[in-house]
Amino acid sequence: MQVAIPLFPRFTALDAVGPYEVLQRIPDIDVFFVGHSRGEVRSDNGMLGMICDASFDELPRPDVVVVPGGIGTRVLLDDTALLDWISTAHHHSRLTTSVCTGALLLAAAGLLDGLTATTHWGAVELLEHLGARYVHDRVVEHLPQRIITSAGVSSGIDMALRLVELVAGAEAAQAVQLQIEYDPQPPFDCGSLSKAGEAIRRRTTHLRR
Amino acid sequence: MQVAIPLFPRFTALDAVGPYEVLQRIPDIDVFFVGHSRGEVRSDNGMLGMICDASFDELPRPDVVVVPGGIGTRVLLDDTALLDWISTAHHHSRLTTSVCTGALLLAAAGLLDGLTATTHWGAVELLEHLGARYVHDRVVEHLPQRIITSAGVSSGIDMALRLVELVAGAEAAQAVQLQIEYDPQPPFDCGSLSKAGEAIRRRTTHLRR
Repeated sequence: MQVAIPLFPRFTALDAVGPYEVLQRIPDIDVFFVGHSRGEVRSDNGMLGMICDASFDELPRPDVVVVPGGIGTRVLLDDTALLDWISTAHHHSRLTTSVCTGALLLAAAGLLDGLTATTHWGAVELLEHLGARYVHDRVVEHLPQRIITSAGVSSGIDMALRLVELVAGAEAAQAVQLQIEYDPQPPFDCGSLSKAGEAIRRRTTHLRR
Repeated sequence: MQVAIPLFPRFTALDAVGPYEVLQRIPDIDVFFVGHSRGEVRSDNGMLGMICDASFDELPRPDVVVVPGGIGTRVLLDDTALLDWISTAHHHSRLTTSVCTGALLLAAAGLLDGLTATTHWGAVELLEHLGARYVHDRVVEHLPQRIITSAGVSSGIDMALRLVELVAGAEAAQAVQLQIEYDPQPPFDCGSLSKAGEAIRRRTTHLRR
């Protein structure tokens, strides 16, 4: 089974690597990082270079697509090379999914028209502007339409465990969860907007995007 | 503030990218991926190439060190280039830390002699053989010794939020947690050995390492 994760300049690394780390544990799954061309792309802040091993043209029919987000999504909302690849891949894929603002790219490719979906809490208006109906859930599934979206950055790990459950069964997903020791113990309880409150939300404006 | 994350052949990507994603959000922090030489290294399964932007020689005195794990650690337990870099960096660092089997490298560099530490549950015996005293905690801190170890793979995210708290304060750490929307909702509750049970543990032997 082929999983394709498209990368682009200024992607958010954990959006891509969280699901990769989960999915690649299944021996039947081969994960390919794809891009406009083969070679290096840089993450949102430029501090991390990751390699695309295939161009979009070289991997037109993956079984599963996982589209990461990042500030770089904003300039891709009319990028026909990427959006055409997403919509064509989705014709044949078993599941087409997004993490964080990767949902903006699914929406721009026309996949989320009228559907409920989730994204990073900071991109809700833009997602709705692109035709989706935002819901405040960590993972939003539309199995008949073969589309799953997940919330900001770290949610891709949760979503990917569900993907493994769907394609390889619950036991496989549980084994992966144990293997990556995903027994979260965050030091605070402020990982969603409803839990964090306004002061912490304002504090995020001082962070790197 | 400089954070150095050493990469090596067959590293586990999420061990490195989880902490990176958390730490780089702080504008004062610059994260550098370092290696035996500049250029690409491949993750444990070879499916992901990441770039080292500096060699060990070029970054001898980082403020914080985060050593990831991976099956590739096993052949590095007598690699003097890496181990000397770790021990020398630790002389000057504010904090020297590990994720997963990165603890084996801290131990091999002599940093964990007689200290309690944690690692991936599958590497406990080897960690103890290398002189540390394993404890089954997700994050183990020795602030006077400036050493923190964390458990398998995904635990690096929890540890990195604590690192942000230590170097930039609790409010900054909370803002990062919200920004990466780290509000974990794993589909199962089997992320540690004590929760998973023997059948799931056996099932992990069918996964890619």
